[in-house]
Amino acid sequence: MRKHGGYIYHEDKMIVDFSANIHPYGMPEEIYQAMKAALEESIHYPDPDCVRLKKLLAIKHNVSSQQVICGNGAADLIFRLALILNAKNILLPVPTFVEYEEAFSTPVFEKSKIMEYPLNVETLLIEEDILEYMNPEIDVLILCNPNNPTGRLINPSLLVRMLEKAKRQNIVVLLDECFLDFVIDGKEQSMIPRIRKYPNMFILKSFTKMFGIPGIRLGYGISANLDLLKKMEAVAQSWNVSHIAQVAGITACQMEGYEEQTAKEIAKLRTWMWEELKKLPLRVWEGNANYLFFQAPGCYDLHERCLSNGICLRHCDNYRGLGADYYRVAVKKQEENEMLMQILQRCLNE
Amino acid sequence: MRKHGGYIYHEDKMIVDFSANIHPYGMPEEIYQAMKAALEESIHYPDPDCVRLKKLLAIKHNVSSQQVICGNGAADLIFRLALILNAKNILLPVPTFVEYEEAFSTPVFEKSKIMEYPLNVETLLIEEDILEYMNPEIDVLILCNPNNPTGRLINPSLLVRMLEKAKRQNIVVLLDECFLDFVIDGKEQSMIPRIRKYPNMFILKSFTKMFGIPGIRLGYGISANLDLLKKMEAVAQSWNVSHIAQVAGITACQMEGYEEQTAKEIAKLRTWMWEELKKLPLRVWEGNANYLFFQAPGCYDLHERCLSNGICLRHCDNYRGLGADYYRVAVKKQEENEMLMQILQRCLNE
Repeated sequence: MRKHGGYIYHEDKMIVDFSANIHPYGMPEEIYQAMKAALEESIHYPDPDCVRLKKLLAIKHNVSSQQVICGNGAADLIFRLALILNAKNILLPVPTFVEYEEAFSTPVFEKSKIMEYPLNVETLLIEEDILEYMNPEIDVLILCNPNNPTGRLINPSLLVRMLEKAKRQNIVVLLDECFLDFVIDGKEQSMIPRIRKYPNMFILKSFTKMFGIPGIRLGYGISANLDLLKKMEAVAQSWNVSHIAQVAGITACQMEGYEEQTAKEIAKLRTWMWEELKKLPLRVWEGNANYLFFQAPGCYDLHERCLSNGICLRHCDNYRGLGADYYRVAVKKQEENEMLMQILQRCLNE
Repeated sequence: MRKHGGYIYHEDKMIVDFSANIHPYGMPEEIYQAMKAALEESIHYPDPDCVRLKKLLAIKHNVSSQQVICGNGAADLIFRLALILNAKNILLPVPTFVEYEEAFSTPVFEKSKIMEYPLNVETLLIEEDILEYMNPEIDVLILCNPNNPTGRLINPSLLVRMLEKAKRQNIVVLLDECFLDFVIDGKEQSMIPRIRKYPNMFILKSFTKMFGIPGIRLGYGISANLDLLKKMEAVAQSWNVSHIAQVAGITACQMEGYEEQTAKEIAKLRTWMWEELKKLPLRVWEGNANYLFFQAPGCYDLHERCLSNGICLRHCDNYRGLGADYYRVAVKKQEENEMLMQILQRCLNE
C-alpha cells in the first residue's frame, strides 16, 4: 500500500482529511506500479476507444463492451449526459451530490428546472410518494445509491418500481452507483444486470474512491441505450481518458476480490464509528457506504473548530435542503477514526 | 475507431511512428520525474482551479491568470469552445486539423455549417481573398498557425487584417498556436500579446507535442474574453485536469529555453528532411513546424507500403479537400529520419 490517502495542508499544517470519501488505505501498490510503468508510454496518445479497459469492464459486469463508456472521471460523464439530454425538468431527491445540478445548469442551454423530491427528514430515505412526483413533465430522474452525502440505500423494490414507471413515462434515469462497491452485498443491489430491461437507465461508476485515485480521473458508465452512449462519445474529444487512467483501470479490473474485501473492512470500521458518533450529542444516520452523515444541531462552525484541531470534515452547507449544521465524515483507518472521535468530542464541548 | 495519428503497434510489429507530431526526443526527464513524484499525490482530487499552473502560464505569456483556461488536452478546449459558441456558420480554411469540425458537429445542437476556404493549391497558404469570405453570416473563423497538416504559416500582416475584420464583424476567432512553439521565432508570430486588442480571439496552446506527453492530456487557452472563459469552465466538471497533468505543466513552465532550443534543433532536422524529400518523386511543401507535408502523386497506398516496412506515415485521406495521395511525416531524430528516407525511396520504387 502507498502512503494512505487523506492528508491535506491547511495554513501550512498537516490536516487529516475526512472530507473526501477515498479508500482508507489509499492507492493499491499494483495500481501505483502499473501507472508508474505507464508514464513512459505517455509519449503516445491514449487509446481513444479505451478498447482494453472496456473489454475488462464488460467482463467484470457481464455486459458487452459497447454498453460501456469511459470518462475523465465519473463527473465528466455526468456533464456529457446532461449535454446530450438537454432536459427541461429534472426530478432530484435532495440532499444529494452537488455535481448533478451543476452539470444540468451549464451555459450551453437554458438551465434544467430542478424539481426537488425532499428525502424523508427522519430517515433520509426515498419513499413511495416519489412515484407521484414522476409525471410526464419529468425528463430525467437522478438517483444516487447509496446516496451522497447520507450513505443511505434506496429500498430495492421501490427502486425497481421507479425504474418501471420511468420506462413507461420515457424518463431517463441517471443511477449513480459510484459508492455501491463499498456496500456489503452491493453487487446484489446493483441494477447493472437489468440494463437491458431498462434501456432508459444510465448507470454511473467510478474508480476514484475504491482505488484511491481521484487525482487521476477515471470513471465509466453502463447502459443498454447504445444511441445515447454514441452521442455521449461524440460530445467529447477523441482522447478524453488519459493513458495513465486507462492503465489504472485495466489494473483495477484484474484485482479480483479487492472490492468485496474492502466492503467487509469498511463495514467493521464504519460500525465502530457509528456507535461512537451516537454517544456524542449528534444526530447520526446509519449509512452503508464508506462515510457517515450527521447533524450537530445548532453547531454551525464545527468544521472550523475541527480544522483548527487538525481534522477536516465535509461541511454539507452547500447541499440543497440542508441546514449549515450537517456534516459528513469518511470512514478511515481505525486509529484515524479514533482521533476523529476525540477531536469531535473536544470540539463539541468547546 | 476514430482515425488519428499515433499508432505504434501494427500486426504485432513495432512500428516507427511518423504519424504523431511529438518532440523527437520525447518526454524530458524533469517532466517524467515530476509526474512520478505526483503519482502518490493522486490519492487527492486535483486542484479544480489549476491555480499554480495558471499562475505560471500567465507569467510565461505575460497575461493575467484569469485570461488562462486549462483543459484535458487542447482538444478538450476545442469541444468546450464549440459547445459555448453554438455557431451556425464556421469559416474553415481547408485542409486543416480534423478535430475542429468534429467539435462543431456534436449531437448537442444542429451541426455548424462549414464554409470552406480552400488554401491556394500551389502554396497551401491563406491568401488575401479570405477577407472576402468573412461576411456577417460567419460566426467563427478557425485558424491553425502553423497549419496542420501543412506546416505552413499564415502571413503575419494578413493575419492581423483578418483579426481586424473579425473584430468589426463580431466573428470569434479560434487561433490554434499549438505548433508555433516549434517554429523559429514563433514567439514573434504569436498573437498572445494582442489578446486585449482582439477580445474576440481565443488562442489554443498545448503541452502535448513540445513536452512529449500526449498520453497525459494537457492543453490551455488564452483570451481576454473572460465571459467566454467563464462559460467554458462551467461546461465541464470541476476536476477536468488531472493532478499528473497539472504537475507536468507546472514543471514544463519552469524549463526555460527548452522550446527555443527545440525549435532550433527541429529546424536543422527538418531542413535536411526537406532537402531529401525533394529528391524523391514527391511534391513537398516547405513547412515551419515539426512535420512535413507532401503529395505522392497517384500513389494512394504509400501508407500501407511503408507500414509493412516498419514505418507509419500520417495518411491525410480524411482531411477535407485532400486526395488520398497526401501524407504527413513528423520530424524525428536524425537516424530515424534517415531510415524514413530509405524506406520511402524503396516503397516509391515498388
